[in-house]
Amino acid sequence: MTDSLPVVAGFRFAGIAAGIKKQPGAKDLGLIVADRPVPTAGVFTRNLVRAAPVEISVSRVRAGKAQALLVNSGNANACTGKEGHAAAIESSRAVAEALSLDESLVLPSSTGVIGVVLPKEKVVSAVPALVADLSADGADRFAEAIMTTDRFRKTATANVRVGRREGVLLGIAKGAGMIHPNMATTLGFLVTDVAIKPAYLRRALRAAVEKTLNRISVDGDTSTNDSFYLMASGALGNAPLGGGDAASKRFEAALEEVLESLGRSMVADGEGAEHAVRIEVLAAKESDALKVARTIAHSLLVKTALHGCDPNWGRIIAAAGRAGVKFDPAKAEVFIGAVRVFKKGLPTFDAETEKKASEVMKQPHYTIRVSLGTGKAVGHVLTSDLGHEYVRINADYRS
Amino acid sequence: MTDSLPVVAGFRFAGIAAGIKKQPGAKDLGLIVADRPVPTAGVFTRNLVRAAPVEISVSRVRAGKAQALLVNSGNANACTGKEGHAAAIESSRAVAEALSLDESLVLPSSTGVIGVVLPKEKVVSAVPALVADLSADGADRFAEAIMTTDRFRKTATANVRVGRREGVLLGIAKGAGMIHPNMATTLGFLVTDVAIKPAYLRRALRAAVEKTLNRISVDGDTSTNDSFYLMASGALGNAPLGGGDAASKRFEAALEEVLESLGRSMVADGEGAEHAVRIEVLAAKESDALKVARTIAHSLLVKTALHGCDPNWGRIIAAAGRAGVKFDPAKAEVFIGAVRVFKKGLPTFDAETEKKASEVMKQPHYTIRVSLGTGKAVGHVLTSDLGHEYVRINADYRS
Repeated sequence: MTDSLPVVAGFRFAGIAAGIKKQPGAKDLGLIVADRPVPTAGVFTRNLVRAAPVEISVSRVRAGKAQALLVNSGNANACTGKEGHAAAIESSRAVAEALSLDESLVLPSSTGVIGVVLPKEKVVSAVPALVADLSADGADRFAEAIMTTDRFRKTATANVRVGRREGVLLGIAKGAGMIHPNMATTLGFLVTDVAIKPAYLRRALRAAVEKTLNRISVDGDTSTNDSFYLMASGALGNAPLGGGDAASKRFEAALEEVLESLGRSMVADGEGAEHAVRIEVLAAKESDALKVARTIAHSLLVKTALHGCDPNWGRIIAAAGRAGVKFDPAKAEVFIGAVRVFKKGLPTFDAETEKKASEVMKQPHYTIRVSLGTGKAVGHVLTSDLGHEYVRINADYRS
Repeated sequence: MTDSLPVVAGFRFAGIAAGIKKQPGAKDLGLIVADRPVPTAGVFTRNLVRAAPVEISVSRVRAGKAQALLVNSGNANACTGKEGHAAAIESSRAVAEALSLDESLVLPSSTGVIGVVLPKEKVVSAVPALVADLSADGADRFAEAIMTTDRFRKTATANVRVGRREGVLLGIAKGAGMIHPNMATTLGFLVTDVAIKPAYLRRALRAAVEKTLNRISVDGDTSTNDSFYLMASGALGNAPLGGGDAASKRFEAALEEVLESLGRSMVADGEGAEHAVRIEVLAAKESDALKVARTIAHSLLVKTALHGCDPNWGRIIAAAGRAGVKFDPAKAEVFIGAVRVFKKGLPTFDAETEKKASEVMKQPHYTIRVSLGTGKAVGHVLTSDLGHEYVRINADYRS
């Protein structure tokens, strides 16, 4: 997933081991610093139960500008009350002091075990090493420092043409399991050298997240800590984008591309997942199509069938039937890859069709397409299979 | 679960092997016959995709009276088009002819594999033996004939005092897996000797199902075939109940008790389940409490934690936080059995508390109680744990 990551002018990155994770030497503290306060946007978990760093960052990012993103893994600092709040404040203050910034310009994030106060002394004493580790080519180390149950680092990049200049957008994320509309247990950090106005930056991030991250599903749970940040250094020197023009459109496309790619990586890394499956539904309205796609994508019976490479059209059509969207099953069709398995209320199934469909399902990526027969508006959701590995990880992992 | 089942005056039962199931000699055809056409009510799956027998019975039960309930296991006769419809019609006609009834008085039900047309010739040729098997004490055989993946038969009984008379209510059901609000993959047959007016019978059944079966959850999927029937023979000789009086209230309580008990059995038999857990939520309004209880009950992370006997308050409170009901986590409390594990936004957790809570979770039945701190209205949902056995059954079972 990671080729060599591009340098993004105006930013430096760090990632070190601060002893927060149990494994000795595991990187668990990351930092991104902009050369000056720059336009910054954030989107956050909609869960009512929000971790201390989320509360702090939600409040600080309202200003529309920030300079540093401080992240630790190994501890979510959620459900930790006043003590947890103080630990997050003091950790970000230590970074602010080391960099001579106003502390309100430091946005903290945490991910890991919940209910345990962040060991602030470990963070504070690691800050000098963290700051010393900052470098323009440090994104790899940062990406590693934010991982928890991830099996691989998640990064994506895109270029953005602005007039005659060529900007770059780099996204770094973590997340596996609990990925769901509303971004559960994911942290994401996007940086670009393109100059962008703060209000537009926020709008663009929200719109792109809605179309990408909010359409993936691993297990339907959402977490206390999810946050996605986007910082624009402006080092490219363009007139700041404000939306509506061609360059803004290209930026929006790049943003969607990067977020979509990060989302795909997270689904592929869904706890114990072996398949990332795009559920695509055709209906009269996009909202109906999405509703049905979500119901199919979340069905446990469908997800276990995906795991078994079982072309179980019955579970797919039954999930569609309970989504709350009216359609006539006699006009519906179901395709697994290019293989039609259901038409006119009946399975189109013989031994050969079943074998073909099952072959499609052995691939790591494929599409299941359901047409309700009511129209051509498309809604899609990315999902993953559910197997023993998911149960093993989640029944054995202790809070 | 089954002691000796009571005789219910006015009804005979049968259960035989007709060769629909693959296992030789396995009972797969059941019949309940009333001595005459009697008040009958039904509630059915809300899934848009409904099996042929459901379509037929929904239409026939509108008359408010019926005389025979014909059930087969081993084949759901769902997504089978016109051929499946004809097979269900002809099967019920064979029973009607053998018993000299109008065929509209026979209500068919099916459960099992979907997408395969009911082998009507097997049913039709078994009808003479089925009718010959009818007896007042045949409820055990009927209960066995309707089982599919069930590990045990599900029956429940209650007495109903009506004036000086003592009536009886007998419920027989099947269901394991896919149990969800709106009654997925469950079939249920209730018979009583109490005389009851048809309109009230229907009202009482719907209200009781809403309070019981629609509050259980195994995996969130709903099926094409769910049906629950209630027949009242009137053999007790009372003036027919019409609601509002003391005897009607006692009947309603008995109905809820029987349905609640059947529901508990189904959750306990949830595919691969080892624990049946009552999720009880206290909130300002019952509807809010139910919404939160459902979200917790359906959370995969909670269900895998139940499997691991892991007192993972974090997953419980995080599920509550995304249910869409406003509350202040700092005022919420979580109890596992009698052990408080979360209070004032913080875990109340030491090694001893954790051990105690984990002990509670080793029991086959226990309660998790969540107070949102907003009021005392109670909503509850029954759920089960999710473990390897669920994955094994559902990833390997072919449609």
